[in-house]
Amino acid sequence: MNKVRLENFSDGVFAIAVTLLILSVRIPDAKNYDNHELNYALRRAVPHLITFAFSFMVVGVFWVAHHRIFSMAKKVDNGLLWLNVFYLLFVAIMPYPTALLAENPFLTTGILVYSTALFIIAFMHFLLLNHIYANKRVRSEVFTAEIYQSYLRIGAVGPVCYILAAGGSFISPYISFFFIFAALVFYIFFSRSTKVEEKLLMKAE
Amino acid sequence: MNKVRLENFSDGVFAIAVTLLILSVRIPDAKNYDNHELNYALRRAVPHLITFAFSFMVVGVFWVAHHRIFSMAKKVDNGLLWLNVFYLLFVAIMPYPTALLAENPFLTTGILVYSTALFIIAFMHFLLLNHIYANKRVRSEVFTAEIYQSYLRIGAVGPVCYILAAGGSFISPYISFFFIFAALVFYIFFSRSTKVEEKLLMKAE
Amino acid sequence: MNKVRLENFSDGVFAIAVTLLILSVRIPDAKNYDNHELNYALRRAVPHLITFAFSFMVVGVFWVAHHRIFSMAKKVDNGLLWLNVFYLLFVAIMPYPTALLAENPFLTTGILVYSTALFIIAFMHFLLLNHIYANKRVRSEVFTAEIYQSYLRIGAVGPVCYILAAGGSFISPYISFFFIFAALVFYIFFSRSTKVEEKLLMKAE
Amino acid sequence: MNKVRLENFSDGVFAIAVTLLILSVRIPDAKNYDNHELNYALRRAVPHLITFAFSFMVVGVFWVAHHRIFSMAKKVDNGLLWLNVFYLLFVAIMPYPTALLAENPFLTTGILVYSTALFIIAFMHFLLLNHIYANKRVRSEVFTAEIYQSYLRIGAVGPVCYILAAGGSFISPYISFFFIFAALVFYIFFSRSTKVEEKLLMKAE
Repeated sequence: MNKVRLENFSDGVFAIAVTLLILSVRIPDAKNYDNHELNYALRRAVPHLITFAFSFMVVGVFWVAHHRIFSMAKKVDNGLLWLNVFYLLFVAIMPYPTALLAENPFLTTGILVYSTALFIIAFMHFLLLNHIYANKRVRSEVFTAEIYQSYLRIGAVGPVCYILAAGGSFISPYISFFFIFAALVFYIFFSRSTKVEEKLLMKAE
Repeated sequence: MNKVRLENFSDGVFAIAVTLLILSVRIPDAKNYDNHELNYALRRAVPHLITFAFSFMVVGVFWVAHHRIFSMAKKVDNGLLWLNVFYLLFVAIMPYPTALLAENPFLTTGILVYSTALFIIAFMHFLLLNHIYANKRVRSEVFTAEIYQSYLRIGAVGPVCYILAAGGSFISPYISFFFIFAALVFYIFFSRSTKVEEKLLMKAE
Repeated sequence: MNKVRLENFSDGVFAIAVTLLILSVRIPDAKNYDNHELNYALRRAVPHLITFAFSFMVVGVFWVAHHRIFSMAKKVDNGLLWLNVFYLLFVAIMPYPTALLAENPFLTTGILVYSTALFIIAFMHFLLLNHIYANKRVRSEVFTAEIYQSYLRIGAVGPVCYILAAGGSFISPYISFFFIFAALVFYIFFSRSTKVEEKLLMKAE
Repeated sequence: MNKVRLENFSDGVFAIAVTLLILSVRIPDAKNYDNHELNYALRRAVPHLITFAFSFMVVGVFWVAHHRIFSMAKKVDNGLLWLNVFYLLFVAIMPYPTALLAENPFLTTGILVYSTALFIIAFMHFLLLNHIYANKRVRSEVFTAEIYQSYLRIGAVGPVCYILAAGGSFISPYISFFFIFAALVFYIFFSRSTKVEEKLLMKAE
């Protein structure tokens, strides 16, 4: 299996999953609304729109992570191929927990399902990374022990936050929202590639 | 992050968002219609079809703008990466305001939401362009101050029209339609790349 | 605008439009069906499935035509860019007339809308081809007058069939089905590229 | 028709079809659920989620098979082109039998339709492979009789399992599930490319 083709297919699944999220925001379906009724219907759609925007950025974070991980592989073996297909299964499932959370933003079960989905995807990043690192035929030359350690440290933030979010859902939804949001902010603003990695990646490109 | 991959992913989101717009045109769902009833149902679908066609062309304009902007970058840094993911969020959201407008074409709220969505996307073009211009490591050599000025001038037409459309929606829907339509016509027929740019772009290709 | 990118985006819209067609085949939504009821529901879905399969092949024919046409261009100018965006609008609209026809396979209006959509797309192939041929900066060197004539001849079969189908719908749906089906069979089995073209295309590749 | 473009288009259809599968998992649509009701609704969604996950992996297997088959072609002729479009029709149809099975997991008809869809796709792999092998202008140099035999042997497992699954559905759904699942496990874990092929493929890349 060609590596470029695998990445293209993965990008396709990411792009579609992320765009399908909008379908979870239901359009108020009564026609002949007056303006007042439409305003009211839109106010009711606000949690949906927030959940959509939030999930979009989360899947965006996963997409970036997926690329960083695959930039460390020089080849795709059978194990990595099927691990990746299995990984994409959970990416493609995201519209479901997103819709569930949008419909029931303050129920324990909705938050629990959503956090668990994020946890599984984040955990599979670790499996993918590990598979690449452990197989000499797959691992790129730039993928040193130093980078592996740094990726593990950065990659651990997500799963830890999502577990805390899942656990917190039994106490208060706001605890869950805090941890899920914290992971998002961390990955967007604080996980910039370190200078060491950048130099190595530059060589690889 | 590889620039080609970022563009491919963006193209994917654009292609999916633009094609999902058709899902906002509901199929009349009664079976056993006679021909007369079907004609009547189709007449009721006309505003939906017009909104679809219109939104398709608007997103097409955004897609072309996105490409022109990214042709001015030689690299993608972290800031541009996340700015672009955030930008795509609003591209992916388009099926929602489109469906909203199609259902309620003459209500202030529907038009206001639609114009605001267009304004945000058009404004983010400016943020993307600015980020590229302001960062030496990101900016392509062909991206001169002259081109920057010309892009700013062309890029300002959209946001101004969309703000006027949003404001006009409180007076009459037709004012809004006029300004949104004017921006579309401007970008398709009057914003052809100037000769200076063309020469520079040709070098870059 | 880069030609490869335009083709990739077009391919994306084609791939999505063609796959969305399946959404027009409604899943019988009663649960707790027994086997007899499910059989009955499936029998009622047969016209939907036939319309899906048929439209899939028709859009496949359009996709092949689009590629043949663009293989004759060496560059994309502004006119070709926007003509192509407008063309893709009608490709993206296909799930709508397909669903309409599937719901009402024997009504004049459904067939008329469907035939008209096919006619517009087929006619726009002619506009695209003509734009490429008429502009020296756009036209590839292999695009000789001989090939142009041959493309026009092949390309005329579709629009003629679709007009006859539209007209025939006022007499009998079977006349329409015959002509639409005839065009499909012609393009799949009888429009193989002639030897002259093949030689020229081979050089271009 | 360019081979790379055909593969990209096919990858697009695969990626979209596989991601649309999630739309067959209906979101419980009552709002104002309490947690208990949501739990109950989720338990009812379990067969849908299992069917989704399963179909995702099955389409993943088909995608890998499609790539292996096309890696044996050096060119695309007219026959291969249309055979592939027809093949993609059945890939794109997959969300329908998947939804049907998810709604009625223990009814003979649902299982029969699902198994038949898998059988047709698996059988078309054989047609594609055969067309490539039989046409000297299409066949890649690395595609030896030895590889052809090995592909036929591996490729036969699927159709045989799916026929047994279809037949078994008249006795017990569990027999069908067993055979469909067996084919999936076989392709993921036991059909790794043999060493001979790998060496040949490596040369081709």
